[in-house]
Amino acid sequence: MNQAVLGVDVGGTNIQIGLVTETGKIVASKKYRMNRYSQDEAIAAIIAAIDDFVKSADELKAIGIGLVGHINPENGVWESAINIPITKPVPLAQLILEKTKVPVFLDNDVNAATLAEMKWGIGKETKNFIYVNVGTGIAMGMVENAKLIRGITNYAGEVGHMYIGRLREGFGDGYLETICSGGGMVKQALSGFEAYPDSILASYHEDGHLHSGTIFQAAENGDKLATIIADQAIEGLGIGSTNIVNLFNPEHLVFGGGVFNHLPLLEKIRRHVDENALPVSRNSLKSISITSLNHNDIGLLGAASIAWMNEKRS
Amino acid sequence: MNQAVLGVDVGGTNIQIGLVTETGKIVASKKYRMNRYSQDEAIAAIIAAIDDFVKSADELKAIGIGLVGHINPENGVWESAINIPITKPVPLAQLILEKTKVPVFLDNDVNAATLAEMKWGIGKETKNFIYVNVGTGIAMGMVENAKLIRGITNYAGEVGHMYIGRLREGFGDGYLETICSGGGMVKQALSGFEAYPDSILASYHEDGHLHSGTIFQAAENGDKLATIIADQAIEGLGIGSTNIVNLFNPEHLVFGGGVFNHLPLLEKIRRHVDENALPVSRNSLKSISITSLNHNDIGLLGAASIAWMNEKRS
Repeated sequence: MNQAVLGVDVGGTNIQIGLVTETGKIVASKKYRMNRYSQDEAIAAIIAAIDDFVKSADELKAIGIGLVGHINPENGVWESAINIPITKPVPLAQLILEKTKVPVFLDNDVNAATLAEMKWGIGKETKNFIYVNVGTGIAMGMVENAKLIRGITNYAGEVGHMYIGRLREGFGDGYLETICSGGGMVKQALSGFEAYPDSILASYHEDGHLHSGTIFQAAENGDKLATIIADQAIEGLGIGSTNIVNLFNPEHLVFGGGVFNHLPLLEKIRRHVDENALPVSRNSLKSISITSLNHNDIGLLGAASIAWMNEKRS
Repeated sequence: MNQAVLGVDVGGTNIQIGLVTETGKIVASKKYRMNRYSQDEAIAAIIAAIDDFVKSADELKAIGIGLVGHINPENGVWESAINIPITKPVPLAQLILEKTKVPVFLDNDVNAATLAEMKWGIGKETKNFIYVNVGTGIAMGMVENAKLIRGITNYAGEVGHMYIGRLREGFGDGYLETICSGGGMVKQALSGFEAYPDSILASYHEDGHLHSGTIFQAAENGDKLATIIADQAIEGLGIGSTNIVNLFNPEHLVFGGGVFNHLPLLEKIRRHVDENALPVSRNSLKSISITSLNHNDIGLLGAASIAWMNEKRS
């Protein structure tokens, strides 16, 4: 069993921990409650969860942790985060190494998912691809010559904050994320209830079922508010994807994240890129696809791939 | 003199050829007429110019050629171009090697300028920067860990084709290049004469002096049409630069190209990025500046740096 690493996927609600082999098999996994009341409690919750899991595991090669916010993978410091309140840098890798005596590596969640994609997904076919996660927010990982493009402080890829213009008056502020992410779509619905009081989305909201999937569904059923939001999200993702293709000239473009549970989205994006990207970049793009990795596992696989990547290097 | 390479900067009107040392000194240079009537005549003009120059030069280490369009630097093939009519791939490096017996390397003009920037400009201080050329068109080169990000077919960096939304009804189609490039600004002026018949820009056009510089000047003097175009270009470059910073998290952002002859532009872009980029990326960006390389030499220096870069590798 010392052929496995530990992947730790830290979310706002849960900490998912699993033992992952080099072929990407999750041998065992367990879910812990996250605490994000304060920085100290958040760190304590992560350390306690890892400590608990490690006690029951055999010898480990490494631990990889996927986190939100700004991470320095070089020295293992969690610099800052907003959703989980990290306001002072924490040497998290060091703290967990001291506790577990196992080498620890950190990265942000989208870089982690991109590394998983490189190791177990589209990376089997190519050294040049872009992975775009469209979930509550939007971010991407860019891989050129089998290397992740990180920027100077490991903060590249914030494509959610790419301005693409206001597509429809009164809906969103022109950024890709506010127009097209799950969180952005819900927010637009909430602010649209006044103008569209008959929208079915209001009752979804009351039942706690308002998300990108139900918005796309309601749009297909002819709900006006839902149609505006869905059309705009589709157009925005088409524009965003075309921009990405024009900027990076990737060989493959891969999507992940909950918004792509609405499958027809993919074909509409393909068409937009086909009609609008520059001919040279469009012709060298071999595929636009949804990740082959299991949606529920990608956080854990991403975290584990941070460990595998670094374990190989050392 | 065998410590020099030949740089060949092929434009639509002229071919500029120069002998360039490893410190970026242009020892000798000469301008030749380009012929772009047909593909064959264009290629013949380039070969004849290089042949003429090489005859009078001492031993050369290498020849670097900066071209427009789609270039394969691996095999030295000029794949295609629009402005110069290259419709069938040409093995230009091979053709010139046969004529001159000197190793020949090709790349596109913006990659070339970025390589010059890496060797003789901001690259002296950093391994992570973006170079954006805002001239007749707009394109950029992205450098991470002292390597140019090329994409799968050497076509990355087409930031002029980034859609940022229509900023003003009736002016441009929402792409960075149509809004902010010199060519885009002139095009907007031409299509604005009907609605603004009193604009001074019409007389500039008649005199053959209509370009981004005179448009910015007329805007400062209160000309309405010029003000609309100038304001939009400034806003567009602010948005585009912020997008670049959010996407790439560079350490330095460097501009070149004729549009930056209007110096106040730089400060306005700095302010926009400062107010709108993500805090982590904004704080790790050390400078936004205009290239320290001489504007008139950058094409030649870029071409020479292609040769130096490859000469070092081989």
